[in-house]
Amino acid sequence: MQSKKLMTGVLSPVITPFTDDLQPDAEMLIRQCRWLVDNNVGLAVFGTNSEANSMSTPEKISLLEKLVEAGLPVERMMPGTGCCAIPDTVELTRHAVNLGCAGVLMLPPFYYKGVSDEGLFRSYAEVIERVGDSRLRIYLYHIPPVAQVAITLPLIERLLKSYPGTVVGIKDSSGDWNNTKTMLEQFASDQFHIFPGAETFLLEALRHGGAGCISATANVNPRAIARLADSWQDDDADEQQAGLNQVRGVFQRYPMIPAMKAVVAHHSGLSGWKRVRPPLTECPEAQLNELLTALAAVNFSMNGLESDHG
Amino acid sequence: MQSKKLMTGVLSPVITPFTDDLQPDAEMLIRQCRWLVDNNVGLAVFGTNSEANSMSTPEKISLLEKLVEAGLPVERMMPGTGCCAIPDTVELTRHAVNLGCAGVLMLPPFYYKGVSDEGLFRSYAEVIERVGDSRLRIYLYHIPPVAQVAITLPLIERLLKSYPGTVVGIKDSSGDWNNTKTMLEQFASDQFHIFPGAETFLLEALRHGGAGCISATANVNPRAIARLADSWQDDDADEQQAGLNQVRGVFQRYPMIPAMKAVVAHHSGLSGWKRVRPPLTECPEAQLNELLTALAAVNFSMNGLESDHG
Repeated sequence: MQSKKLMTGVLSPVITPFTDDLQPDAEMLIRQCRWLVDNNVGLAVFGTNSEANSMSTPEKISLLEKLVEAGLPVERMMPGTGCCAIPDTVELTRHAVNLGCAGVLMLPPFYYKGVSDEGLFRSYAEVIERVGDSRLRIYLYHIPPVAQVAITLPLIERLLKSYPGTVVGIKDSSGDWNNTKTMLEQFASDQFHIFPGAETFLLEALRHGGAGCISATANVNPRAIARLADSWQDDDADEQQAGLNQVRGVFQRYPMIPAMKAVVAHHSGLSGWKRVRPPLTECPEAQLNELLTALAAVNFSMNGLESDHG
Repeated sequence: MQSKKLMTGVLSPVITPFTDDLQPDAEMLIRQCRWLVDNNVGLAVFGTNSEANSMSTPEKISLLEKLVEAGLPVERMMPGTGCCAIPDTVELTRHAVNLGCAGVLMLPPFYYKGVSDEGLFRSYAEVIERVGDSRLRIYLYHIPPVAQVAITLPLIERLLKSYPGTVVGIKDSSGDWNNTKTMLEQFASDQFHIFPGAETFLLEALRHGGAGCISATANVNPRAIARLADSWQDDDADEQQAGLNQVRGVFQRYPMIPAMKAVVAHHSGLSGWKRVRPPLTECPEAQLNELLTALAAVNFSMNGLESDHG
């Protein structure tokens, strides 16, 4: 059923820039995506760290169109398309497939809590049937700390059995290595790719048959993370992993999205990057200064962001 | 600032019927709303129990238009309009105001967890400023067990101070009488109306200055609940409350939405009422039979549903 190889390596849930009246800024997003691709990182736009759920379906459709029109590579795109309402998920997913995106990253519907695996299976099945396109490649999105609705192992098994070649992977943002390891042991294959949701687990995941990672901090530290994904069998892999963990550790001390946006604003000289949509709030100046000091102490740099954005 | 009296009494988050291909069924919804209004219950359409977040913004806009066109009373309407993304909340809210709805019930954005009161304040403020209409009446929607994002007392205080006459009430679905009581003590007034999210607290709330209730089970037991709201100062009020609690107690043993839909399907003879959108699953036949037996034991009847729908 599969005509192309699945994506591997590192992807970033690309942060979304907003104008001063809080509209998505397509031009700034295009530039950021170019920089990420130049640093060997794929585009998981419209993820949690993209504030995707703070944008409407028409806003996301318009942004994705502009990214593709700008010539960004669809074979490196895995837009998030999972919403609470099936019609929204279907519309975004169909649109991404028609634009040629390599895959979509799909949250379960996340308003109702304590729903059954049967209900979640029907949600995914309904979307797959309605989209009805053999080009569709779905990556499930397991992020219980935020969505509060989990994708369990039995649900993965059932979806994989019912829709092989369509349900082709998962992003595990549980933050629990034991969960990722169990997923790898039970499901990892050429037909099902497992991406931990942070580079903290990148090396271990690759050693256990993982496909790479999809990580927030790939927004700010793309080259180093992508390098480990490429050279994980080299002698210095553990050392590389330790370096990545230092940078990640600094960002994790702060609310991640505002912190990354503030750092990108600082390094690019584009202050608009600081903006977030409510209910998030921007990183206070004092916090940014702490963050920059801590990053300098771990020799952090944002390769070429200044010149690309200058 | 206020030209009209605020709504009081009992409102129902009206359950939403779906056709066999899971599209909203406007005709069936209109009939159900007529029956509720005939039983003295207002229309808090697009609530949690309406599966509102399982519908897209265009679907909700279309349904609300059809309800108004059908002649249902806008002065009894409080549609839910709170979404994760501000543009959706603004669009739904503006539409409801333009149709003349007496108020809107507004969830906080609920994807991100652990957000600050400052961020939630900005969310509501942004919606109010963008809608920019003096006719707007917002009822906040506090439902932490589902949304997992709370509306705290300091947030209410700040909104009330910043937007008097616009932020005019709250539905408290915490299920915690102490929380409702504190809200009543701190905020209840002619300018701020407090509705517990279940009739279980109706009598107590009315005795402490509450405005009524907005309750799921008003979908199935409207007349008796509305009667208590009208006659709570009568001698038999406690007895009435005990009767309501018995019926509520039966429904609470089962997943509420599928259970109510199954009972409406049974009594109306319209089997389509059983349908729910994923991720919910319909009430199994065996469960419905248990439910009907338990309801018969507490002398439950659905006043006039059969003839209205027959």
